[in-house]
Amino acid sequence: MSNWIYHFSKKNSDGDETMRNLLGGKGANLAQMCKIGLPVPPGFTLTTELCNYFYENQQSYPADLEAAFDKAITHLEAELGLKFGDNQNPLLVSVRSGARVSMPGMMDTVLNLGLNDATVQGLAAQSGDDRFAHDSYRRFIQMYGNVVLGVAHHLFEDILEQHKNDVGAYEDTELSTDSLKSVIADYKSLVRNQTNQNFPTDPKEQLWQAIGAVFQSWMSPRAITYRKLNSISSQWGTAVNVQAMVFGNMGDDCATGVAFTRNPSTGENMFYGEYLINAQGEDVVAGIRTPQPLTIQAKQEQGTELPAMEETMPQAFKELSDIRALLEKHYGDMQDIEFTIQRDKLYMLQTRAGKRSARAALKIAVDLVNEGIADKKNALMNIAPHTLDQLLHPTLDQNSSKSVLAVGLPASPGAACGQAIFTAEHAEAMAQNGMDVILVRSETSPEDIHGMHAARGILTARGGMTSHAAVVARGMGRPCVAGASSLVIDEDSKSCHIGSTVIKEGDYITIDGSTGEVIQGKVNMVLPELSDEFSTIMEWADEFRTLKIRTNAETPTDSKVAREFGAEGIGLCRTEHMFFEGERITAMRQMILASSEQSRRHALAKIQPMQSADFLEIFKMMKGLPVTIRLLDPPLHEFLPHSKEELEAVAEAAGIDVNIVTERTKFLEESNPMLGHRGCRLLVTYPEICEMQARAIFIAAANASKETGEAVLCEIMIPLAATKQELSLLKDVIIRVAKEVCEETGQEIPYMVGTMIELPRAALMAHELAEQAEFFSFGTNDLTQTVWGLSRDDAGKFLAEYENKGIIDNDPFTTIDVDGVGKMVEMGVAGGRITRPDIKLGVCGEHGGDPASVHFFHKVGLDYVSCSPYRVPIARLAAAQAGISEAGISEAGINAAGMSKKS
Amino acid sequence: MSNWIYHFSKKNSDGDETMRNLLGGKGANLAQMCKIGLPVPPGFTLTTELCNYFYENQQSYPADLEAAFDKAITHLEAELGLKFGDNQNPLLVSVRSGARVSMPGMMDTVLNLGLNDATVQGLAAQSGDDRFAHDSYRRFIQMYGNVVLGVAHHLFEDILEQHKNDVGAYEDTELSTDSLKSVIADYKSLVRNQTNQNFPTDPKEQLWQAIGAVFQSWMSPRAITYRKLNSISSQWGTAVNVQAMVFGNMGDDCATGVAFTRNPSTGENMFYGEYLINAQGEDVVAGIRTPQPLTIQAKQEQGTELPAMEETMPQAFKELSDIRALLEKHYGDMQDIEFTIQRDKLYMLQTRAGKRSARAALKIAVDLVNEGIADKKNALMNIAPHTLDQLLHPTLDQNSSKSVLAVGLPASPGAACGQAIFTAEHAEAMAQNGMDVILVRSETSPEDIHGMHAARGILTARGGMTSHAAVVARGMGRPCVAGASSLVIDEDSKSCHIGSTVIKEGDYITIDGSTGEVIQGKVNMVLPELSDEFSTIMEWADEFRTLKIRTNAETPTDSKVAREFGAEGIGLCRTEHMFFEGERITAMRQMILASSEQSRRHALAKIQPMQSADFLEIFKMMKGLPVTIRLLDPPLHEFLPHSKEELEAVAEAAGIDVNIVTERTKFLEESNPMLGHRGCRLLVTYPEICEMQARAIFIAAANASKETGEAVLCEIMIPLAATKQELSLLKDVIIRVAKEVCEETGQEIPYMVGTMIELPRAALMAHELAEQAEFFSFGTNDLTQTVWGLSRDDAGKFLAEYENKGIIDNDPFTTIDVDGVGKMVEMGVAGGRITRPDIKLGVCGEHGGDPASVHFFHKVGLDYVSCSPYRVPIARLAAAQAGISEAGISEAGINAAGMSKKS
Repeated sequence: MSNWIYHFSKKNSDGDETMRNLLGGKGANLAQMCKIGLPVPPGFTLTTELCNYFYENQQSYPADLEAAFDKAITHLEAELGLKFGDNQNPLLVSVRSGARVSMPGMMDTVLNLGLNDATVQGLAAQSGDDRFAHDSYRRFIQMYGNVVLGVAHHLFEDILEQHKNDVGAYEDTELSTDSLKSVIADYKSLVRNQTNQNFPTDPKEQLWQAIGAVFQSWMSPRAITYRKLNSISSQWGTAVNVQAMVFGNMGDDCATGVAFTRNPSTGENMFYGEYLINAQGEDVVAGIRTPQPLTIQAKQEQGTELPAMEETMPQAFKELSDIRALLEKHYGDMQDIEFTIQRDKLYMLQTRAGKRSARAALKIAVDLVNEGIADKKNALMNIAPHTLDQLLHPTLDQNSSKSVLAVGLPASPGAACGQAIFTAEHAEAMAQNGMDVILVRSETSPEDIHGMHAARGILTARGGMTSHAAVVARGMGRPCVAGASSLVIDEDSKSCHIGSTVIKEGDYITIDGSTGEVIQGKVNMVLPELSDEFSTIMEWADEFRTLKIRTNAETPTDSKVAREFGAEGIGLCRTEHMFFEGERITAMRQMILASSEQSRRHALAKIQPMQSADFLEIFKMMKGLPVTIRLLDPPLHEFLPHSKEELEAVAEAAGIDVNIVTERTKFLEESNPMLGHRGCRLLVTYPEICEMQARAIFIAAANASKETGEAVLCEIMIPLAATKQELSLLKDVIIRVAKEVCEETGQEIPYMVGTMIELPRAALMAHELAEQAEFFSFGTNDLTQTVWGLSRDDAGKFLAEYENKGIIDNDPFTTIDVDGVGKMVEMGVAGGRITRPDIKLGVCGEHGGDPASVHFFHKVGLDYVSCSPYRVPIARLAAAQAGISEAGISEAGINAAGMSKKS
Repeated sequence: MSNWIYHFSKKNSDGDETMRNLLGGKGANLAQMCKIGLPVPPGFTLTTELCNYFYENQQSYPADLEAAFDKAITHLEAELGLKFGDNQNPLLVSVRSGARVSMPGMMDTVLNLGLNDATVQGLAAQSGDDRFAHDSYRRFIQMYGNVVLGVAHHLFEDILEQHKNDVGAYEDTELSTDSLKSVIADYKSLVRNQTNQNFPTDPKEQLWQAIGAVFQSWMSPRAITYRKLNSISSQWGTAVNVQAMVFGNMGDDCATGVAFTRNPSTGENMFYGEYLINAQGEDVVAGIRTPQPLTIQAKQEQGTELPAMEETMPQAFKELSDIRALLEKHYGDMQDIEFTIQRDKLYMLQTRAGKRSARAALKIAVDLVNEGIADKKNALMNIAPHTLDQLLHPTLDQNSSKSVLAVGLPASPGAACGQAIFTAEHAEAMAQNGMDVILVRSETSPEDIHGMHAARGILTARGGMTSHAAVVARGMGRPCVAGASSLVIDEDSKSCHIGSTVIKEGDYITIDGSTGEVIQGKVNMVLPELSDEFSTIMEWADEFRTLKIRTNAETPTDSKVAREFGAEGIGLCRTEHMFFEGERITAMRQMILASSEQSRRHALAKIQPMQSADFLEIFKMMKGLPVTIRLLDPPLHEFLPHSKEELEAVAEAAGIDVNIVTERTKFLEESNPMLGHRGCRLLVTYPEICEMQARAIFIAAANASKETGEAVLCEIMIPLAATKQELSLLKDVIIRVAKEVCEETGQEIPYMVGTMIELPRAALMAHELAEQAEFFSFGTNDLTQTVWGLSRDDAGKFLAEYENKGIIDNDPFTTIDVDGVGKMVEMGVAGGRITRPDIKLGVCGEHGGDPASVHFFHKVGLDYVSCSPYRVPIARLAAAQAGISEAGISEAGINAAGMSKKS
């Protein structure tokens, strides 16, 4: 075979599960299932490299592709004894996209490709079932017409609905062959009207167009949005899988289904899925017919009358159960599978790591280890760190009264409360305005993803536990209640009826994704109890990580929470954040606005005891752990008074005229405050501020160590340094004050002086800065601002468009820009270590709590990351994954779980 | 000798002229003069490394210094048959500072050191002149008391004046021995009162203290200011020269003088200097006694009655004249020398490259080559490029009427007009407020340097052509009239009388530093004619430079001026600068404020013909030379309307409600506009702007080449790129438009597409950007802002203090920060060349016209620099010096002239 095309079949497969990057997840796993002897219809995969070639060459194909392609088809024909486009024995195929990671934003599937007015006769003859052949043909035109030719889905549905009404049918299966034939005729007219051309009859043309459509769908707005939300690079490309058809719609001994090898919501070790008799795949996912449970146990639990597969097809069910165990054992992880039963014979169409809730992920990980199916490393690697966030989400207060309007399926756990909004666009707009939103839809589709992401929770009237809404919500960590069938939604009037209750747009509702309850109004929330599995996973994580995890905290409360979550110190205590409240802000303003050293010292004298008291509490709380205190670093504008009242308050406190305060405020205003007189620049011009802060720190440290009997591990951090001279000047002040306080208190006060590396120049001159600094903390927020020349405050207006246009893969303020900002961090690390081999290195930007960034920080060899208290568990797990992956777990595993922001 | 101390004498010298960095300029040249056999009193030099040791070790000395020092003294004593501190045959020494480059900010000189009540008797006996001995002692106490002990100069002068009044003396020389003795007694009381200790009597203590004072003067505020103004690193340190005394004050067969080997104002080849009989060095420079001319010719030209040295001391004059020729030949440059005649014997005390006006520098350089004294390379190296700026300064319009109030000495050429201000502090403050200031002083001192720098011109009532005011003004390129003796200045009332005219503070005056005229009010100015020497020097410069020089210009006028000055193309045509006037700004605002593509296209349609017309003129003007056009790069706030009228004008032009315009303006305001939605980010979100600009450029290029018959060399530059994706997206637009215009006009339009490298990320990712960009232009202004995290608009408030505190040596916006920003440039160069070995590289920030920066850009291998039109000649010369210096001229030469900003 050529380099562009990889064959798979029971007899021989060119690929295997390790080739995910080249063949996509679907292609690699199809090949792998063939290798381990599972029943998979044969086919071949066009590689992701072909996709990249396609985009790099004005959407054209390499010259050697066609020959290779023809060979692949011939090979498939030979294997099956069928012929593509043949009127007697037609080979029909499915065409599916399949990227490195699963992407609902792309073209999903075209089934039954190869049918036309001639081959449909062949299929009828071959199968002995005229109705089945025409049902397949009808489905093919509908899917192909929609995803390849771009004809709106609902136009086909309208025709189908019309024909069902005409004959009084409720389900598709009730349509006769003749009805199907007239549906087909109407479908063809629809395509002709909408596209100004006839539906293509040449199977080869159909196939080439379908392949092109898959590649094009890689750059569809939906796909781009999905990649943006999930940190997927546009460079990865998608593969295309062409596979021989098997049919779940050939009669009542046929079926199609999807399943998870364990419960993806709770993690419980039970076979969990749905199937439909006499149906094709899309019927299950689309939520049009109500799917049936797989097992008798599930049937009982759901309280449904629909027969389980275990009952209707016991033989195939047995085989499927065995395959379930085999796949879990093989992959060491819970799987999400698709299957079709054609005349009682089971075929596997897909397996992949199953998406799951955070709670399920922890339980599955711990269970798999306990069952001997996975080792700790693999178990840890299969938990997406960011999903832990869900576990820290609030749940409904059980003691609170609530008015339950409806109960749907508990599709994604957690509770959410917000204003009901009925379109994705509006949900996004409202969320951007800071509103809490519950997106309410009949069913969701990939077009709704941005609105789902913006919402606090999702409620649908239709669809099952594997519906689009359920799957995507679980992936995003949004609570979801799906299939609440008593909801009647009227998009036009932007309202919905639940029984006699009307919910209008903007009305508050609450959903509980763990119980399926839909509740009127707001309900009190409580913080959740963390499970035993959580503790176990955190303990395991600690075994494998080398990176320490600290927290960014400046209050005793935050410090306490972080310590409980396992923080090993404070990596960033922002002293200016202590001064936004009450009298403090006035004293702070008075200090900033003082025009002489004397009046500044006067204001500083007021501030010092407040700072000292804050530090004392924090030192006591973090007893035995290091605390990094950053000296004053305000972009001045954050503190300037603006209202008349504020100006007057400052004037009164300082005992000067309000006009002077106003003038001085004007003088201090800056054109670009982020690049202004801030950080150590303020301390250099007003060393008395540095003096006051050092004194407040050392007095607090002396008192804390007197009270606790333990030395305080205090690290004083100088912000925004660009030169070693700045550090040397301020370090001299700190050393002097330390000596003074030591003499006054008679106590030894151990401390270190270090700096933030948050300017490109600091990274470039790290070898010099390390002459003075005993530690570095990378301030990746500011570093990103300066490396990109991009202000966080202003970037919002255009950064989304940059992501949409594929210019950037991630918001660099969320996930570190490894190529640019990361390079500066590497230079800073190298420079610091040249001068001071044992220099302590950490990071305290927002990136410290982002899994992909944590991975990078581990790789460049930092000692610790520091993040907000609630992200400490996420950082612990991410750090463990980084450690494990360095030790040699395949990258595929990382991409599947740990590395991606929201998998 | 130890490593800390270098001896010099006729018999043996440890150093020579190449050791300027270690011994300072004075020390190195004293050693060199000894080596070539000139009469130099012996002595030794304490190295600049000792100074650095001193500052790195809390102002202490190395352990091995004292022994080495004692050895050096003993050596000197042995050579002269004198003994330091001996009552019979005392060795007296001078102590002078001497840095790598001359620095008036430092301690200058202490003469006659070693005197006390006992040794003064020995000096009297030795010289047979009691009065001379006590005159020397009086001078010693005064100088030492002032510069070492810090007693104010004027307090000594007051005592001296009192004693002169008491005996009716007019000059110091008229005081008797007894009078001098009581002056000495009063001086000692003064020192005791002011310092609470007795004047030190131990010569060794005197010497150590004097040395310490020299080292300390290296960090005096004056020295720091001087270094700041002259781009001298604080790391260089100063040397200390201890030299045996010779006496110019031993009677009427003694004298002291200073001279330039050529006229430093005009460059004329005539011996040019002043001397005083029976005086010590400080008498000449201080301007207290009126110095006499050296030559009869000068006497005649100045119209003075005072006898010339040529007349009074023909023998010594002859010897000095020979030395003048010898030194010029040896150093290949005009020299500034100091000498003393003791009992008819000539001693040389200093030689150094003489400071000179720009006009003189050019003439001297050309003459020295023509006279065979210097080669072209050396001649070019001895012109400080920035001084050329002076030649482009305006002069008085000869046709303008003027009211001449007084005529002083034409001390530094050029004319200046401004408000008379009487203190340096006030001059600086007024200049900061944007006023043109003439600093008017009785005489200037190093404390006045900051005010002189801030002023347009300097006028003094006292002092000669080598007075402080004259020397410093020439160095700074400020016009200066010195010694306008009819001025009577009253500092208290802030006014001065000239005859019957009173000039009050703030009154306008005009000075002509080329004629010495002081004129009332304002006089019209004209641009000067450039001399033949200017053209010669520019031609020679072109022979030695490899760096091409382009200009930053966006008007036909600027383009014309630059082309006349030798610009080889336009390196930066800022398209947004074309839109600040009249109707254009309204159209521009309309475009920026448009909220839909349609209304933006409407506004763009108005702008396009205006742009095209501008480009056409520029292309025609620059026929045959490349023109780099930067696409729109406004920090948006520069264009937003603010006043009610502006808002209404935009609303009317756009045909929309003023409230909408106001809202949109508010929406577009940014917190940090420098880091905002600007540069290519705007073009990415609004590609129609890129389209319009590309169209305007290509249409103009097509028309220009049709009119001129020559192809336009057009380079389109994309600003503020951080990723290759931005470039690729915009390049596609440009290529498309180019094709369209080619088809419409039927003309081939050659062009290149490149980018600015002005963000750290662009430098880091240069290898990727070069995949798209055919050229790079380093935007070092923005790069400095981002590398330092420092906004040009805001840095002014604290950058001066950073220089004062020694944190930075230069304003990084003036001279490129080689360590930080320079490193990024180097990375950008390397990255660009990896991908595209022949990539064209230039720079278009302000640094392109700064000599030190040009040197750096040459070193890193750029193809061209681009600067404002009037700096093109400076850049041409600086580029030549960079080329020559790379080819191997000693660094000392570069530091002396080319590299320093204002030497």
